[in-house]
Amino acid sequence: MTLRTRQTMHAALITAPHTIEHQEVSIPEVGQDDVLIQVELAGVCGTDAHLLEGHFQAKLPLIPGHEIVGRVVALGRNARGFTEGQRVVLDPDLNCGTCIMCQKGMRHQCLHYEAIGVTRAGGFAEYVVAPSSVVYDASDLDPEVAVFAEPLGCVAWGITRLRPEPGSTALLYGAGGIGLLLMQALLASGVSEIAVVDPQPARLELARKLGAKHVLQATAETGGQLRDLYPHGFDVVTEATGVPRVQQGMIDQAIAGGKILVFGVAPEDARIEVSPYEIFRRDLTVLGSFSLNATIPLALKWMRSGQVRTRELITDTLPLGQLHEAIGQKITARPESIKAIVSPGEVLAGVLK
Amino acid sequence: MTLRTRQTMHAALITAPHTIEHQEVSIPEVGQDDVLIQVELAGVCGTDAHLLEGHFQAKLPLIPGHEIVGRVVALGRNARGFTEGQRVVLDPDLNCGTCIMCQKGMRHQCLHYEAIGVTRAGGFAEYVVAPSSVVYDASDLDPEVAVFAEPLGCVAWGITRLRPEPGSTALLYGAGGIGLLLMQALLASGVSEIAVVDPQPARLELARKLGAKHVLQATAETGGQLRDLYPHGFDVVTEATGVPRVQQGMIDQAIAGGKILVFGVAPEDARIEVSPYEIFRRDLTVLGSFSLNATIPLALKWMRSGQVRTRELITDTLPLGQLHEAIGQKITARPESIKAIVSPGEVLAGVLK
Amino acid sequence: MTLRTRQTMHAALITAPHTIEHQEVSIPEVGQDDVLIQVELAGVCGTDAHLLEGHFQAKLPLIPGHEIVGRVVALGRNARGFTEGQRVVLDPDLNCGTCIMCQKGMRHQCLHYEAIGVTRAGGFAEYVVAPSSVVYDASDLDPEVAVFAEPLGCVAWGITRLRPEPGSTALLYGAGGIGLLLMQALLASGVSEIAVVDPQPARLELARKLGAKHVLQATAETGGQLRDLYPHGFDVVTEATGVPRVQQGMIDQAIAGGKILVFGVAPEDARIEVSPYEIFRRDLTVLGSFSLNATIPLALKWMRSGQVRTRELITDTLPLGQLHEAIGQKITARPESIKAIVSPGEVLAGVLK
Amino acid sequence: MTLRTRQTMHAALITAPHTIEHQEVSIPEVGQDDVLIQVELAGVCGTDAHLLEGHFQAKLPLIPGHEIVGRVVALGRNARGFTEGQRVVLDPDLNCGTCIMCQKGMRHQCLHYEAIGVTRAGGFAEYVVAPSSVVYDASDLDPEVAVFAEPLGCVAWGITRLRPEPGSTALLYGAGGIGLLLMQALLASGVSEIAVVDPQPARLELARKLGAKHVLQATAETGGQLRDLYPHGFDVVTEATGVPRVQQGMIDQAIAGGKILVFGVAPEDARIEVSPYEIFRRDLTVLGSFSLNATIPLALKWMRSGQVRTRELITDTLPLGQLHEAIGQKITARPESIKAIVSPGEVLAGVLK
Repeated sequence: MTLRTRQTMHAALITAPHTIEHQEVSIPEVGQDDVLIQVELAGVCGTDAHLLEGHFQAKLPLIPGHEIVGRVVALGRNARGFTEGQRVVLDPDLNCGTCIMCQKGMRHQCLHYEAIGVTRAGGFAEYVVAPSSVVYDASDLDPEVAVFAEPLGCVAWGITRLRPEPGSTALLYGAGGIGLLLMQALLASGVSEIAVVDPQPARLELARKLGAKHVLQATAETGGQLRDLYPHGFDVVTEATGVPRVQQGMIDQAIAGGKILVFGVAPEDARIEVSPYEIFRRDLTVLGSFSLNATIPLALKWMRSGQVRTRELITDTLPLGQLHEAIGQKITARPESIKAIVSPGEVLAGVLK
Repeated sequence: MTLRTRQTMHAALITAPHTIEHQEVSIPEVGQDDVLIQVELAGVCGTDAHLLEGHFQAKLPLIPGHEIVGRVVALGRNARGFTEGQRVVLDPDLNCGTCIMCQKGMRHQCLHYEAIGVTRAGGFAEYVVAPSSVVYDASDLDPEVAVFAEPLGCVAWGITRLRPEPGSTALLYGAGGIGLLLMQALLASGVSEIAVVDPQPARLELARKLGAKHVLQATAETGGQLRDLYPHGFDVVTEATGVPRVQQGMIDQAIAGGKILVFGVAPEDARIEVSPYEIFRRDLTVLGSFSLNATIPLALKWMRSGQVRTRELITDTLPLGQLHEAIGQKITARPESIKAIVSPGEVLAGVLK
Repeated sequence: MTLRTRQTMHAALITAPHTIEHQEVSIPEVGQDDVLIQVELAGVCGTDAHLLEGHFQAKLPLIPGHEIVGRVVALGRNARGFTEGQRVVLDPDLNCGTCIMCQKGMRHQCLHYEAIGVTRAGGFAEYVVAPSSVVYDASDLDPEVAVFAEPLGCVAWGITRLRPEPGSTALLYGAGGIGLLLMQALLASGVSEIAVVDPQPARLELARKLGAKHVLQATAETGGQLRDLYPHGFDVVTEATGVPRVQQGMIDQAIAGGKILVFGVAPEDARIEVSPYEIFRRDLTVLGSFSLNATIPLALKWMRSGQVRTRELITDTLPLGQLHEAIGQKITARPESIKAIVSPGEVLAGVLK
Repeated sequence: MTLRTRQTMHAALITAPHTIEHQEVSIPEVGQDDVLIQVELAGVCGTDAHLLEGHFQAKLPLIPGHEIVGRVVALGRNARGFTEGQRVVLDPDLNCGTCIMCQKGMRHQCLHYEAIGVTRAGGFAEYVVAPSSVVYDASDLDPEVAVFAEPLGCVAWGITRLRPEPGSTALLYGAGGIGLLLMQALLASGVSEIAVVDPQPARLELARKLGAKHVLQATAETGGQLRDLYPHGFDVVTEATGVPRVQQGMIDQAIAGGKILVFGVAPEDARIEVSPYEIFRRDLTVLGSFSLNATIPLALKWMRSGQVRTRELITDTLPLGQLHEAIGQKITARPESIKAIVSPGEVLAGVLK
């Protein structure tokens, strides 16, 4: 195996805020509980952009990348249940297992939180190492599908939090990559019909193709249009925008007894104005959903059954050398871009000396 | 029976905003599905004060009073399951049974909502009439206990909405009449320990007597004190104050994954500032709870088992003639007042000409 | 309107065990809360066969038929929310609203249970009367679809009881009319993949067309085949057979932590042998589901969204005069028969004198 | 510390079916993730008797004992969050973390299940070793209380499975050690009133003292007496007997819509006769509950809050040398015995050479 002879690998590192460097670095060491994975594909996420901007107290230099599919190339002594060559995906969240949050079954809220690609070396590299407890078999999925395991795992946690009633009506703001995963997951979890709002007609078209009953281009009239369609409001209102103004408007679109899921990542210092009387008077439930919590298996089920389709969402597949453009949003800020995927095996000629 | 010969009864009516008049009015007619009840006791609620101020589009004149215990004195032809003389309590909420909200099992959110003591004649009178479907047997309870069936039914709906996990820690703001019911209901529903915050030491003393583990007099330091006691926050945070400033602060006291119940009635035009990032980042759930929804039976169970004690809460028992003072808060605004109960059978000498 | 002048209608009555007679009877009286409905279609159910055999302490003579779609032709004084000519469906279960079961929200378990087509005149007639509280708008559905509202409402209650987790695997025994509704409802409620077992190849073919992932013809080897497909068992195991031997075998096919739904109607005196150790050791949940409980709205949603398809299930549409053959199973016992529907407007020539 | 110089410890070993030997054995090695604990107390459980009889494919010789409280005496390199001298309790269940059951959050159903005191060395010894992930702080509890963490953790899993509705009525068969824990846990989790059936008057007296509303000595008339008390049945019916005849009778005592928890360990080959029609007709739910699943924290909360009292349950405290008598039921078979606790620090004179 190549690994035996190679000691180093290509990797993309955030070395300072706003700086990505491509370096030859040591292949990570494989501890007794670890699995070493050759990365096939790694998805680009908004979190990567935040890391590049210096948020999240990232300890630099850092190899980002936490949406990872690859093949097992080495196993630690205690890492059971995997074989070399097997395709796997990762849950990037690591946890101590003993703090109050871990004891409550909220391991993604661990007081000693660590995450692959966030606080330790991630998947924008040829190899990545992970404890076997966060590695999941994906041998029956193509890499272009399996690379969505982590973002769809986040959606799966949102669904687990939300638990829509069978037959629910739903409203979704935002038809980007996450929004379109969330839309399909809602339909796979009991929602009977969904309306989707987005500024981009191309995204709305894709939303309809993937199962939306109503699609509405976001304008000043959207609120009124939704009221015309659903005069009493929706059973479920959610968003994948992170835009506080959108989040503030969700309550108005919920039926009495309805549930509102705050799914997008708003700025930490943003505040929205909420009427406590409305929450009281209409028996509303407002829920947040952070990261993922043991929900990779649900994500894999949805991809295997075809209930959630992912191929349509990949608009950009890039070599590792173009990571900066992808994260820096030269690519992903284009209206037509939905999801960018990096192929770390393909290194752009000339990037590495 | 007196009823056969009497045609009229004493009643307190809101005849105009800020005006209560005591009149001799006709005893209500008993329809085929109805039960006529001789009122033993009727509790005074904040809603009565709102009605007196002219809110809720009340059609005046109106006999208020929706917390009612009494004895059956007459039954309509189709009103089954009750006998004359039987002590009963009422669920004041009436509903159409066929609108979308009724079909969803949210009858208290009925689009054609009516309520005894709010939109039709209530219990601040010698007699009140109600359809048998909202009448519940209370023959094994004393009237001083049973008169809490409706407010405790509201608490029971809040608990039904909240569903605290067994072993939960809870924080409650407000130890008035509703707060002390809510506190006991939380302890009867899985909460293991509860901290209570209120400005009044006497109320806190009663809270401790009724089961609070920690009581804190509300000051500028309360937030910090709570953090010292529960550094990671509480599983459940709730309030029975209706004060927007208090409601705004609840989120900060919840543990990741915690639930926040907005139970008090805030002003309709109040707004609180909420961080959508916090709701997202800490997997919070914010719930509202309005009125009651088929939860009188649960209230009765708690009173029968002794899990919720009510006698300690009655600080003022008044004849009907003093209703104005009770509603107008000359009585209930005293710091030592917790709950005022009216005895409509006792008419203050000289009130009626 | 015809109704004003006509006083009688054609109807099929069970006059004695095993005897159906076709008579001209009075059109039912419309009480103040009632809706009079001209029956368009009425489905034939196994319960009708039981009634014909003299079970259920039926008070004869009785017009059976409880799966009803029709048009409103008259309204009682208090029957709000409907207009003449509107297509509607019925929930046949009537309840007192005040007994302990009604108070618990289990109205279909009412201690004073009555049901249209079971204890009072049903839909195998030109007209049927029902209180408006059990009438539901179906004006946007074709009668061939809407006639499934009641059986699908039973399925909806089964789903409400079961609450399958998103991503569940399921196993269903029985692909008759109810089984195929149940299969589709499971897929609309979070189940990701379902295997269906039935003796009839034609039914299995239809099951696959309607969404089954695996179909297995029932043989002595079925158990082993299922184990090969799902070595750890299924998250959900259910049946629509009522066959005790099938019900007894379900536990073996459930994964640890799985749920088993007893949905079919077994003989009252049948007993199955169950290992209490297995229920304990594997954290199993065995649930029953009876009739329907406020679940017509969910059934209507599934039919409107197209998540549950019903047209494929109708194999026999008969005039009222052939009801005996349908109930007596000359028709429905044929292997190719799935669901028989009666059209009471079409009266077989010669049946009525 | 003694440990530095001592290499061996006293322990009780099952060396062959029906044979307990007391030996001087090596103190267990402390792996990098492990905690070494000096055992203060270890509870005797029915599982120990099964192991002694040669069940559970136990690999002998084995040190049994899985209900353990003790003090930390050494920590592996990666074992964070504990200090020497700290009192701790153990969750004996170990799991692989990667199999399908672990992925489903059912770690106690792990396909590669191991358990301290069952498949590896347990607590009937001076020292026991455990991975830090199954060790929980109990520094604020007395050892006589904390020793109940594991059996109460099993009860907590039963409660988690059952989730009684607030205000539920409950029936419990069996007032032994587990039954009395279960009774108190039900009352701490929303049950409003509980009836307890047992053959032993002394146990029933203790049940009443700990909160039972009704206690009934088991006779041929018990069923009828319960029907007199609760004519419609109980919301929750459970047992801690493991007696199939008792388990078979539970269904008859449940109200329509009620839940039946199979909690006791029946013989593997026992079968009970169940009417599938009854499960269907009355919307029953029959649940099993095995072992414990991340529920030590809930057990600790109940003990800390005083909601579950344990001291009253300890009837026998024995030195390690009398373990054979405790397990072999010379002691525990006495009618007055409820729970036997072993103190491994006290070695019976003369047992060890």
